[in-house]
Amino acid sequence: MNQNTKDLLKTIADLSSTPTGAFNIRSNGKAIQRQCSENIEIITKEDKTGIDITVKPNTKHESLHIPVVITESGINDLVYNDFEIGANSDIVIIAGCGIHNDGHAKSQHDGIHFFHIDKGAKVKYIEKHYGEGSGDGERELNPTTIVKMEENSYCEMEMVQIEGVNSTIRETTAYLAKGAKLIVIEKLMTHDNQIAHSNMTVYLNGEDSTVQVISRSVAKNDSEQVFHPTVVGNEKCRAHVQCDSIIMDKAKVRSVPEIAANNTDAQMVHEAAIGKINNDQLIKLQTFGMDEEEAEDIIVEAFLN
Amino acid sequence: MNQNTKDLLKTIADLSSTPTGAFNIRSNGKAIQRQCSENIEIITKEDKTGIDITVKPNTKHESLHIPVVITESGINDLVYNDFEIGANSDIVIIAGCGIHNDGHAKSQHDGIHFFHIDKGAKVKYIEKHYGEGSGDGERELNPTTIVKMEENSYCEMEMVQIEGVNSTIRETTAYLAKGAKLIVIEKLMTHDNQIAHSNMTVYLNGEDSTVQVISRSVAKNDSEQVFHPTVVGNEKCRAHVQCDSIIMDKAKVRSVPEIAANNTDAQMVHEAAIGKINNDQLIKLQTFGMDEEEAEDIIVEAFLN
Repeated sequence: MNQNTKDLLKTIADLSSTPTGAFNIRSNGKAIQRQCSENIEIITKEDKTGIDITVKPNTKHESLHIPVVITESGINDLVYNDFEIGANSDIVIIAGCGIHNDGHAKSQHDGIHFFHIDKGAKVKYIEKHYGEGSGDGERELNPTTIVKMEENSYCEMEMVQIEGVNSTIRETTAYLAKGAKLIVIEKLMTHDNQIAHSNMTVYLNGEDSTVQVISRSVAKNDSEQVFHPTVVGNEKCRAHVQCDSIIMDKAKVRSVPEIAANNTDAQMVHEAAIGKINNDQLIKLQTFGMDEEEAEDIIVEAFLN
Repeated sequence: MNQNTKDLLKTIADLSSTPTGAFNIRSNGKAIQRQCSENIEIITKEDKTGIDITVKPNTKHESLHIPVVITESGINDLVYNDFEIGANSDIVIIAGCGIHNDGHAKSQHDGIHFFHIDKGAKVKYIEKHYGEGSGDGERELNPTTIVKMEENSYCEMEMVQIEGVNSTIRETTAYLAKGAKLIVIEKLMTHDNQIAHSNMTVYLNGEDSTVQVISRSVAKNDSEQVFHPTVVGNEKCRAHVQCDSIIMDKAKVRSVPEIAANNTDAQMVHEAAIGKINNDQLIKLQTFGMDEEEAEDIIVEAFLN
């Protein structure tokens, strides 16, 4: 494992040594290390690229790391990962993708993740995206996430784009059965000429299903962001969607939330705000001796964390 | 003028006698009464159906009534009305359309209104839509409204659909120059199998332009409503869009607001909420001896006014 790979693993999955529990590390289009646990099985798919992950019912307090790194230029990596999360289990999944591109060719990772979360299971999913490198080759990350949640299951997804990703199209779809609860926390930062599109559709199909979407983004320089979160309430349910964006320099942000109530007992709220950085905060920090850029960095970091 | 016409004029334009000031009353596809004033000229278009209205610069505290009524079944009335509002004038325009349909054929009115509001002018525009009648012939109203606002002009539009309109597609587009301020208040009630679509696009093209959109709706029975208000901020500007809907019975409501910031100094906020009628209020009113339906009517009326 070279230094770039190590650095990326630290950034995207907070890994500085071999993780405990089950893991699968993918580098430049190939699985390079894997470990299963008694309760978590990882099997290479036979019909296409990717893995099948099975978490046994009642598995408690285990973690699964599945980071992907690309350190070569010109890699185009498409992966299908299917997760079968057994009933009443309680696990943490740390995914994420980092690209180090020193070359001229584009490096790209498209991860298509399908989660089936069985009755009463609880999943915390963390996915961090990051790009770096001295080359002018693009770094592109397109995650597709499909979540099928059974009765009384719980899922919390934290999806973060740290920086350095030239282009991303994020597609997230979730189907919630009775009593299921989904929390999506999206944090996104773009800079230079980067483009980010995030489309999300959540179907509240079961009685008393709940979704909360918190999206926070910062668009710097000439970057562009488009958000289109949609929640469809087909039963007695609750939805709260909140999108806040800070826009800087010559950036552009478009927010197109959608709430659709197909049932009288669907309670749905959306809030969105786009604005520039808080000027009072900026001045206050500058009175402490920071220059404008330092002050901006602090505010942006606080906003995204 | 028959009794149905009189009743409709009272409902949509609060007219029980000939209005003072300029007016044009259109009935069953024909202008039946018209009066100009010294400052407000109304001329029949020569190339298509409709009128050209010119308000002289500096006209103050005058009103213009332009109601449209349809009392026959099977009428399909398409009208183009162009409004030239002179600089620094301050006027009130009362439009509105009422259909009384006792027959089996559909009666429809499509009003395409273009407003040019010159520098510093102030317009209050009130448009009420209403349908009634014992026949099973549909009552359809499709208003298209285009507003071009010059520097420091002000426009307040109150667009109301009272009841009885089977189908409506509402298209509103506004272009705001420097310092212009637009307030749109939309109130919409649908019942039975009615369908209402409201699309709105506001372009904030001038520095310090402002828009406030307040949309309130009630969807009863099996009716369906779709809202798609869009605000595009191309300069230093402020936008506030607020959509609140009460959903009852088997109705469906979809809200798709969109805010697009193309300038760092664009401050844009959107809020949307869909929910059922407030249960505490319902119970409180019932303790005063009202039945459920009476209590609902009171709450709906209060919400829309």
